[in-house]
Amino acid sequence: MRVLILGGDGYLGWPTAIYLSARGHDVAVVDNMARRGYDNELGAESLVPIASLQERVAVWEAVTGRRIAAHIGDLCDYSFFEPLVKSFQPEAIIHYGEQRAAPYSMIDRRHAVYTQTNNVVGNLNVLYAMADHVPDCHLIKLGTMGEYGTPNIDIEEGYLTITHKGRTDTLPYPKQPGSFYHLSKVHDSHNIMFCCRIWGLRATDLNQGVVYGVDTEEIKLDERLRTRFDYDGVFGTVLNRFLVQAVAGVPLTVYGQGGQTRGFLDIRDTLACVELAMLNPAKAGEFRVFNQFSVLELANAVQQTARELGMAVEISHMPNPRVEKESHYYNAANTSLLSLGLQPHFLNDTLMESVINVVQRHKHLIKAHLIMPQVNWRETGSPLKESEAAAD
Amino acid sequence: MRVLILGGDGYLGWPTAIYLSARGHDVAVVDNMARRGYDNELGAESLVPIASLQERVAVWEAVTGRRIAAHIGDLCDYSFFEPLVKSFQPEAIIHYGEQRAAPYSMIDRRHAVYTQTNNVVGNLNVLYAMADHVPDCHLIKLGTMGEYGTPNIDIEEGYLTITHKGRTDTLPYPKQPGSFYHLSKVHDSHNIMFCCRIWGLRATDLNQGVVYGVDTEEIKLDERLRTRFDYDGVFGTVLNRFLVQAVAGVPLTVYGQGGQTRGFLDIRDTLACVELAMLNPAKAGEFRVFNQFSVLELANAVQQTARELGMAVEISHMPNPRVEKESHYYNAANTSLLSLGLQPHFLNDTLMESVINVVQRHKHLIKAHLIMPQVNWRETGSPLKESEAAAD
Repeated sequence: MRVLILGGDGYLGWPTAIYLSARGHDVAVVDNMARRGYDNELGAESLVPIASLQERVAVWEAVTGRRIAAHIGDLCDYSFFEPLVKSFQPEAIIHYGEQRAAPYSMIDRRHAVYTQTNNVVGNLNVLYAMADHVPDCHLIKLGTMGEYGTPNIDIEEGYLTITHKGRTDTLPYPKQPGSFYHLSKVHDSHNIMFCCRIWGLRATDLNQGVVYGVDTEEIKLDERLRTRFDYDGVFGTVLNRFLVQAVAGVPLTVYGQGGQTRGFLDIRDTLACVELAMLNPAKAGEFRVFNQFSVLELANAVQQTARELGMAVEISHMPNPRVEKESHYYNAANTSLLSLGLQPHFLNDTLMESVINVVQRHKHLIKAHLIMPQVNWRETGSPLKESEAAAD
Repeated sequence: MRVLILGGDGYLGWPTAIYLSARGHDVAVVDNMARRGYDNELGAESLVPIASLQERVAVWEAVTGRRIAAHIGDLCDYSFFEPLVKSFQPEAIIHYGEQRAAPYSMIDRRHAVYTQTNNVVGNLNVLYAMADHVPDCHLIKLGTMGEYGTPNIDIEEGYLTITHKGRTDTLPYPKQPGSFYHLSKVHDSHNIMFCCRIWGLRATDLNQGVVYGVDTEEIKLDERLRTRFDYDGVFGTVLNRFLVQAVAGVPLTVYGQGGQTRGFLDIRDTLACVELAMLNPAKAGEFRVFNQFSVLELANAVQQTARELGMAVEISHMPNPRVEKESHYYNAANTSLLSLGLQPHFLNDTLMESVINVVQRHKHLIKAHLIMPQVNWRETGSPLKESEAAAD
């Protein structure tokens, strides 16, 4: 299948590209290198050194004989993106090409406006390019379980059948996103649903949990194929931060009471989900929503595994920089992908050990000052704003 | 009360400004003249000639002795907007300052991107300026009943209490907006709700029906205080188009079967709603949603009134340029404003006659070619796109 991967240089985009290339698909990737730019802006970096996109595709071809076309440019620039879609004629578009960190979107006004403009406009351009040049193409859009917030009722897959005053309808599931980033994803979902309705486009919204893991079968072929590992307070996810803290021998920092429940997802399951969605496309005019995640007891699991590996790990509670419920109901449906045949990986000691091993190999690169949160949801301008200027 | 009106040169913004100024409030208006620019772009114009904003405020001062400060600039330009909020210290902000025509947003990709960027970024700037400089200020944001779409259950005011699998929560009412413009308003509402939650801002989302009418007490003081009357296929609303068609002696053009039910609102009720919301502000942290409209049998009412005035009026059905249900359930709540004391005006022969009189006075200015729809929801590029180039 001809598949175009947007954000193909990112943490998930790159492993997806080589996963699908290995399975015989004709893969092209698009990236504007924004993610590497955020590192430059924040003075942060992937713990695991990563090759340039150009080197990655060259190594991939050397190792497997398979070619991946890499296009460097911005989805928001239609004069770049439209001709690409027109000439490549993708049968599937996998859209990871957005600013994806909640704390980054909360730094200040400028970063909030950037996040929403970048994500919404890029996504609108994708929809118009599809409608004009590949109306049968299937859009697989990466969303997040965080779009739903933490309602006091069960979370369903995108829609909810509601009976109200004796009448019934199936309506979009009400969303309560928790950052300007999460809001941008909700805006995207509304725009996609509308375009499926008016133009008959086909789309799958893949709401994923927080993804963890560093190893895929393809990455293991060559160290130069490694994907990012982020542990900083802006782009690092909570499991990564905990694992780095365990290896660095500092306490695991839990935000507030620590009763927050979120969905998590093994990186190998992300790839399998995307492939399943691609091989079983939505119908013309259909806007399909899949949820994919499992729920973990994170801090305790990290503490236990690390202790088994001989590390002394403490847990420390700190004031929560986010505005969120620290104790709440959470029960979400994720049956669609299981019914398509997904065999999920659950977080276990073996997976956690494999990540800890990678972290330990790069322990000398850990920068402790990057780990702590610097963005506070209650402030309109975070210290990061000042530190940018102060950095020189 | 110090009140800042965004979009204060527009169809509703200007009548609101003089209505509140007449009632002793300290009024400042902001406008970037985008609405007059759309006229230039489309080769359209208000049937009723309107004075410049500068002349309007001068006439208002000459007639009443009251001053309205007029600031010309763009909400999306924070270097213009922030200092204005900081120095004026508004107690209420009334936000009409958005691109407000569904057909305009559907012309092509460029107009869709413009509409969503302009509306979302301008609104984010308002929220940040409030949080930073006037955290107690009350935002009154103009929304539209069109955000809800046409669900098969009753439409409530912003929220819906849902019982699902034995658990209950009150959640944002699910929205099914019908154009990129309506989508932009839904994006705005999500962003505002979030800012009320994290920063404790206070806001009222005023979802109005399609507004009609040309006369307010203030406008009647001087012909140079008149507000716009749009009847073109892009910015003209359906009642205005019908009235112009009746006066011009051409058939009333109903889109499709004509079973669409929408809410409508007298312009005097818009002003009363805004004032009621302003005098009864939302609480800190509260995102309040009011609906305001009544349902009308439009084409038949226009036909009957016009016939009574001696005009021969036919009704003609044409293919629907929009993607919408032409026959559907519609029952929406609008009790909040009534309970605050609103005395609604319903469309009656007298009101319709007063509009018809104004249209008749300007009959010689009617341009018949502007009336018909030129934007089709099913196309990604409308004929308007080409006519722009062809116009030279």
